[in-house]
Parts: sequence; structure tokens; C-alpha cells
Amino acid sequence: MSAHPRLSMNQGTIKHASLPEAIDAVLGAGYASIGTWREPVQELGLAESAARLADSGLRLSTHCRSGFFAMPEGPARRAAIDDNLRAIEETATLAAAGAEGSTAVLVIVGGGMPEGSRDVIGAREHVRDAIGELAPAAKGAGVTLAIEALHPMYASDRCVVSTLGQALDIAEDFDADVVGAVVDTFHVWWDPELLPQIARAGAAGRIATYQVCDWATPLPADVLMGRHYPGDGVIDFASITAAVEATGYDRDVEVELFNADIWATPFDEVARRTAESFAAAVAPHLAASVPA
Amino acid sequence: MSAHPRLSMNQGTIKHASLPEAIDAVLGAGYASIGTWREPVQELGLAESAARLADSGLRLSTHCRSGFFAMPEGPARRAAIDDNLRAIEETATLAAAGAEGSTAVLVIVGGGMPEGSRDVIGAREHVRDAIGELAPAAKGAGVTLAIEALHPMYASDRCVVSTLGQALDIAEDFDADVVGAVVDTFHVWWDPELLPQIARAGAAGRIATYQVCDWATPLPADVLMGRHYPGDGVIDFASITAAVEATGYDRDVEVELFNADIWATPFDEVARRTAESFAAAVAPHLAASVPA
Repeated sequence: MSAHPRLSMNQGTIKHASLPEAIDAVLGAGYASIGTWREPVQELGLAESAARLADSGLRLSTHCRSGFFAMPEGPARRAAIDDNLRAIEETATLAAAGAEGSTAVLVIVGGGMPEGSRDVIGAREHVRDAIGELAPAAKGAGVTLAIEALHPMYASDRCVVSTLGQALDIAEDFDADVVGAVVDTFHVWWDPELLPQIARAGAAGRIATYQVCDWATPLPADVLMGRHYPGDGVIDFASITAAVEATGYDRDVEVELFNADIWATPFDEVARRTAESFAAAVAPHLAASVPA
Repeated sequence: MSAHPRLSMNQGTIKHASLPEAIDAVLGAGYASIGTWREPVQELGLAESAARLADSGLRLSTHCRSGFFAMPEGPARRAAIDDNLRAIEETATLAAAGAEGSTAVLVIVGGGMPEGSRDVIGAREHVRDAIGELAPAAKGAGVTLAIEALHPMYASDRCVVSTLGQALDIAEDFDADVVGAVVDTFHVWWDPELLPQIARAGAAGRIATYQVCDWATPLPADVLMGRHYPGDGVIDFASITAAVEATGYDRDVEVELFNADIWATPFDEVARRTAESFAAAVAPHLAASVPA
């Protein structure tokens, strides 16, 4: 089997796989790249994870995910910062172990509003401050912090950064190789400012990763789980992918799906189905057929 | 009992009440204003509804709701336009029957993407075109079409207009007394551009109605039903209300709640509880204590 050469399997799509199981499924379906998640990496241990990744010959596209620091100073904030510093180290180690073309990109989800707070504006400033505190460590480690805007339905409890423009407003305080942004179609497809903000991100060299995933309604009871294979929903991958490619983005494209049905499907079947949906819905709109 | 003089009960909050039942509940709790819904008005008949409203001595704040025309030309589009023309007539008739200070404002929900479509941008243009087709009739009837931005989680299936800025971009093609925008806290609280867009709307005289309702998580299984009494969630009514008032907005403020628990509560209890939550969470931030 083969998959598109720029397709990367985000491990969140096969959430219940260990890292070795994920690697097996991805290799079996002909992928050349993987985006790791922290929990399975920590379960296996960082050194062993890096060794397995090196043995696999896969590229690393991103390491997911860290952040969750939209709170004021205090012990919880300190714990979050410390955890993010570990995530930066993990990212650097894994990227160094990955095949040529690996990118040291750590996906950052800002976090929701602190319990009892009504100050979403203030919470965003906590995110900006945390990025500022982490930026020197990221720069030192050669890691790019990729700020992910999450759909506004998660603004209160998961991520106070809701648009690509907002992510860029924060990123622009820092060097482009240190702080960038995620373009995840599920989160941003609805945004009337999307295409100009993709152009802005690209012009500034701040598209740290491009993730594809479809939106369909009705949403499931747990709105975190409503992500679908590309092509199974309403998102126009043609225009969004073309906009990303027009900026010169030429690296891996991840598929990240949170979906109870998909998580209950055998890993190799998910890897195959993901590659097929990507080939049909996304690949035709990619300008470069191999990653940079 | 008395309620704040600028508080209006949006009939959607007591969805299962007939118009006479709604009027009774609202008068019993000391309100001076009501926002009607089309279904109970049509159930009673327009003439009888107008008579009941006139007898009640209540003001009309808005008539809800119309729109749902984000589709290309064809029979469905024609039917939607015809239905909207009827809604304009209803609004004019009810506003004329309401007490002094009534406003002839028809709330417009653009509608979701057509079945099978992936063209959200095109769907928005269908909304703009429909507003253009309705504007002369609205102007002739003295009715303001109030474009409502719905939360982006409804972008595919209910409303392709997702931000206040986007609503204003459409409204600005028309006279301010003919096409305005709704500011509904539930839908727009998360928007990083909210405060400047409220200022923009106010400066252009386009805040057609201000609706308050709180956001809390987790969202219910039906995400339409996650609206809460002001104060029961994360929305900062102080800053948003102050921004609306700073524009000179001095008319009624509606509470519109879709919530299965609230809909299952006796109407008079809902009316009382709504007035109490409004008094505690919103009224302190109103500049003018009586409507213009």
C-alpha cells in the first residue's frame, strides 16, 4: 500500500494505539510521516519512543499537544509552564529521531477560561504571556510553538484562542521560527476571514502545520468528537488547501480525527481509510506532491 | 411585581406558551415589553395577535424570526422569500399594535448551507442577495431587518453568518433604518473583534436589538438548547453591555433562552426568574434606566 507522500497520520486519529501500534498501522498503510501525541510517548518513555521513531523511518510532522495555561500566576500556572517545557524537550528529541524532513513543531492549545472567570479577554493575555515565557526555551531547542485556534464552541472550556487571526496576533510578538500557527480546517472553516488570514500567516512564514478534518452536523453529544474524514462533511478542501499551498507551504499535511466510531475501528483500517479520504478530498489540491 | 423597564421577554424563552399565555406571564412579572415569535402569532392569527398585544399595553421589541434563505434561486428560495415578506407584514402590524416605544424589528437568521453544498462563501452571498430582495418591502413597511450572527457552531446547518462584523458587512449595503444587526451575547461573546464591532455597529446606527443570554459548558446534546439565564455562565455582561450602551443604544433588551429545563418550567416562574437574573447580571450595566 502507499499513501500520499505528504500525508501524515496524527496519532489522535488512532487515540487508543500505543506508539508502536501506531507506527505499525501507519507503515502498513504506506505513510511516510506521523504526528505524535504526548500520552503514548510518555507511556513508552521518551528515549524508547525516539528509538522506535528512528527505526520506523517515519518523519515527525508535529508533537501534540501542550498549552492549557490561560490562567493567572499561581501553582497551576507554574505546573503548566513546567509541563510545557517538558513538551518542548519531547518535541526536539522526537524531531531529531525522525527521518529527514521531520519538523520540530509543538501544537499549543491555549486552554479555557479559569474556573469562575468571565474574563475571556484577560485569559487570552495569559496565553500570550505563557508563550512569551516559553519562547526562549523553544528557540533554544529549535522547536516551533504552533498556536492552534480552536472552534469558538470550545472558547470557554478548552481554548480562548478562537480564530487564526487571533493566533497570529499572538505569534507576531515572536520570531516566526519560534512561534507559528496551526491551520486546522475543522476549527477555522467557518471564519469569514479565513482565506486572508491564511495568506497573512503564509506571508509571515507562520503556518507551522496544516491539519485537515471535516465538519458535519448534527454534532455528537460530546462536541469534541465531531471530526470526520475529509470529504464526509461540508468543508471545502479545495479552496482552503489551495490558499495554504499558495503561500508556499510544502510540508506534511496531518489528518487529526476525534470521533468515537473511528476510535473504535481497527488501527490499520483507520490508517487505510484516512489515506483514501485524503487522496480523494485533499491531495488533488496540493501543489507539491512531495514534502519539502 | 416589577421588572426592569428596559427588559423584554423574548417569547422563545417560553416557547410552549401561546401568545395570550405569554402576555399573561409577562404582565404578571411586571414587564413592559415582549418580543414575539411567528409560530404562536400565526397560531392565534395576526389580527387577533395584534389586538391582544394592543390590549396588553406591552411594547413590541422584535418579531422572531425569519430568513433561512441561503440557497440558490429555485422554488425553495421563492418560498423562503414569500415567507419573509409575510414576516415583514407581521412585524409591521404587531409593532403598530404595541405600546409607544415599540420597534418594528424582524430578526433574520440567514440559514445554513444548502444540502450537499461545500460553498459557505457562496451561501453568504445568497443571504446578501435575499436581503437585497426584501429591503424594498421592509422599507415600505417601516420594518428593520435585523441580521443575526449565529455562533459558528451553527454555521453549516442554521446560519452562515457567524460574526457581528459579517452581519454588518451585509447590512452596510443598505440604509441603516432598513437593515441592521442583532447583538446576541450567546452567539458573539467569544469573538475577539466583538467590542470594536459593537462600536462599529453603533456608530452606523445598526444595533437593531440587543439580546442577552449566557453560555455555559458542557453544551447539551442538542447544541441549540445550551442557552442560560444571564449570570449562570461565563459571559461578561458588564463589558458587552457597556459597549452597547456606549453607542447610545437605549431601547429594550431581550432575554432569549432556548433550554429544555427552562421550557419545562411554568411560564410565570420563567418570567420572574428571567427578570431577577436580568436585574442582577445586566441591569447594573445599563446607562439608561428607561427605554428611549
